[in-house]
Amino acid sequence: MDAAAKTVMERCDRLGNISEDDDALTRPFGSGAMREVEKVVAGWMRDAGMSVRRDPIRNLVGRYEGTGEKTLILGSHLDTVRDAGKYDGQLGVLVALASVQRLQDRGELLPFAVEVVAFADEEGLRFGTTYLGSSVYAGAFDGKRLELEDPDGVTLRDAVRDFGGNPDALEEGGRGGGDLLGYCEVHIEQGPVLEALDLPVGMVTAINGQSRIQVTFTGEAGHAGTVPIERRKDSLCAAAEFVLEAESVCKKEPGAVATVGEISVSPGASNVIPGEAHLSLDLRHPDDATRGRLRDHLEKRARETATSRGGRHNWQVRQETPAVRMDRRLSGMLGEAVQGSGTTVHELPSGAGHDAAQMSALTSVAMLFVRCKEGVSHNPAESVKEKDVGVVIEVMSRFLDTLAEDMEAGVAPYEAKGETA
Amino acid sequence: MDAAAKTVMERCDRLGNISEDDDALTRPFGSGAMREVEKVVAGWMRDAGMSVRRDPIRNLVGRYEGTGEKTLILGSHLDTVRDAGKYDGQLGVLVALASVQRLQDRGELLPFAVEVVAFADEEGLRFGTTYLGSSVYAGAFDGKRLELEDPDGVTLRDAVRDFGGNPDALEEGGRGGGDLLGYCEVHIEQGPVLEALDLPVGMVTAINGQSRIQVTFTGEAGHAGTVPIERRKDSLCAAAEFVLEAESVCKKEPGAVATVGEISVSPGASNVIPGEAHLSLDLRHPDDATRGRLRDHLEKRARETATSRGGRHNWQVRQETPAVRMDRRLSGMLGEAVQGSGTTVHELPSGAGHDAAQMSALTSVAMLFVRCKEGVSHNPAESVKEKDVGVVIEVMSRFLDTLAEDMEAGVAPYEAKGETA
Repeated sequence: MDAAAKTVMERCDRLGNISEDDDALTRPFGSGAMREVEKVVAGWMRDAGMSVRRDPIRNLVGRYEGTGEKTLILGSHLDTVRDAGKYDGQLGVLVALASVQRLQDRGELLPFAVEVVAFADEEGLRFGTTYLGSSVYAGAFDGKRLELEDPDGVTLRDAVRDFGGNPDALEEGGRGGGDLLGYCEVHIEQGPVLEALDLPVGMVTAINGQSRIQVTFTGEAGHAGTVPIERRKDSLCAAAEFVLEAESVCKKEPGAVATVGEISVSPGASNVIPGEAHLSLDLRHPDDATRGRLRDHLEKRARETATSRGGRHNWQVRQETPAVRMDRRLSGMLGEAVQGSGTTVHELPSGAGHDAAQMSALTSVAMLFVRCKEGVSHNPAESVKEKDVGVVIEVMSRFLDTLAEDMEAGVAPYEAKGETA
Repeated sequence: MDAAAKTVMERCDRLGNISEDDDALTRPFGSGAMREVEKVVAGWMRDAGMSVRRDPIRNLVGRYEGTGEKTLILGSHLDTVRDAGKYDGQLGVLVALASVQRLQDRGELLPFAVEVVAFADEEGLRFGTTYLGSSVYAGAFDGKRLELEDPDGVTLRDAVRDFGGNPDALEEGGRGGGDLLGYCEVHIEQGPVLEALDLPVGMVTAINGQSRIQVTFTGEAGHAGTVPIERRKDSLCAAAEFVLEAESVCKKEPGAVATVGEISVSPGASNVIPGEAHLSLDLRHPDDATRGRLRDHLEKRARETATSRGGRHNWQVRQETPAVRMDRRLSGMLGEAVQGSGTTVHELPSGAGHDAAQMSALTSVAMLFVRCKEGVSHNPAESVKEKDVGVVIEVMSRFLDTLAEDMEAGVAPYEAKGETA
């Protein structure tokens, strides 16, 4: 796999230079850089023996036919955040391509077709959304989004049209899942776990569910010099207790993460006791019931803290995203492939969202994480090892082989999600 | 004292309507409103039998002669913050005036002169300074301040000249203290203590010393979803521990107050673990050694908290202002006067700064606080009771009487601070 890994790394470098910015990698939906990158990747798809098509939002789809009628989808996205790294998204597309290239190199046809999808927008940089590409592909696109505007006032409708897509076809533009075996996505971990364990890859168990909550503590503003400490209703002290409580409950609940990433106080002067403290809470867990329990516990504690300090609290749930569990059977086969490549199987949840979450509306999904340096992502310092890319290509090849063997042996009557449900 | 209190309340109302703003009380140094208010107050001084002069920064000084050569100063300031209340500062000037008016009404000469000073700038609204007026009067003005500019780019030098003062005389423009018996200031409490105790007045023991410190906690920014809770270096969690520690140490140390009035985190996004947290610490105590000990303890705890979380801290002392103790003898006499008026003597430190702090460079100082509604100040809702003003006028009259009796009995060889030191 050494040569294949080298090719993937070189291709990551090459795509990493196709950007809207001169000195940074920034590739929003519908940009000239996206157009160019899709052209390059389409060429590589054809080189690997694939037919190429584009769906109504210009997701790029390469198809490598098999001997049977079923289809397995591999993929990830080609758009980036601002000042991005060159592995988030595109590594998944290029590893999928490498897996198909290997089939072509060996002149091998599987009992199923392999589709490589390169989604046109996952990060949502331009329209402040996420999963535009995969939501269309999965048939889960919400037409109301067409009226969203980018910072220049261009609507998503116009942007899709300018990009060569068909905005009116987005809601009904899903691929359809009758023939699908599943969707498998390779992605950098964007976290430090695999590096800490010295493992090249990890098995994703679920994409964590998420609660986004806005919390306000209201106390009483006052003069920093004249109000005795025991007579204060300091909203920041209440907020501080809450921040530590959120950390503390997560330490007791494996897999849970809570983050207060924004905080502000008013009036916000060094000599005035804060009358109000506003903070954001981001709570994630692979299991929705557990997340719900933690959320309710934290609201209770927020209320108790506010009340015990003679103040009030306000709790506004801004967003609740359910967890997406990876398919046991697909993950099991991926796990076997990891083991087969001589690597310890480590399971971990994905704290970040991925296209696989949208794709779960269409078919069974599985994900494989690749170790990234210091867990850094969304940053030019994003870094993966060529050796690890070699491992992941081997894992994907073994996975395709196992799936083919199982199908030929008639072990697994794989069906599209819609049909088995 | 009922009529005198009524007059003081009416005069507070009248001065409260002389403002630079149409719908709020805002009276910065050198403004037309200050010019008008000084003219009105100068008239009342003359009505009370005082000669009137203005010093180089246009502090207004009324002098009621006595039979001896010594002088007692009473006073406070006439400038205000933006959108101010009508008692902070001017109540002290008007109570002083009422005390002199009573002498004139009774045709009484004391064995010492009484000077009523109305300082031209205490709040520092226009130039971002404090105590401009009293620093000049006390001979403690720093000439470098002359180059300070107001928001319109007018220097303090030009503002003093435009106001009719003499900027070149400010540094040497102190009153001089050879004949002084002391300085006594009446001021609203600006805190809730007297109201809670149901007392009209309180004896100030000291103007608290103050440390102003900028604290930064540095941890490690990261993805709110992908970094496990036990691998985080969350700078806001460190800051939260510090906020609660600052509160906790003050609860154990009578008279201490610590306030974190400003806090910000970076990068400051709801889905990013805060890499840095910046906060202000305002620490006050009547005793400098105690304040120093608390400050050092909090720095140690900041370091320990940062280290225990694998991060760093930065501790920048921005300002250290020593405490100013009230003079025992003057305060003793004030206390007798309070008792004589049938009021329980309650001693409390002043958490806010006052002109008395500057005046302590010139002479012995004492202060009397008047209860204000809900401890509110620097706000149009500032409110005092006419009945309480009656009490404070009676206390001041008793205080003048006692001082006169003591002098006549030869009990107390009062000297200016400079001579006795």
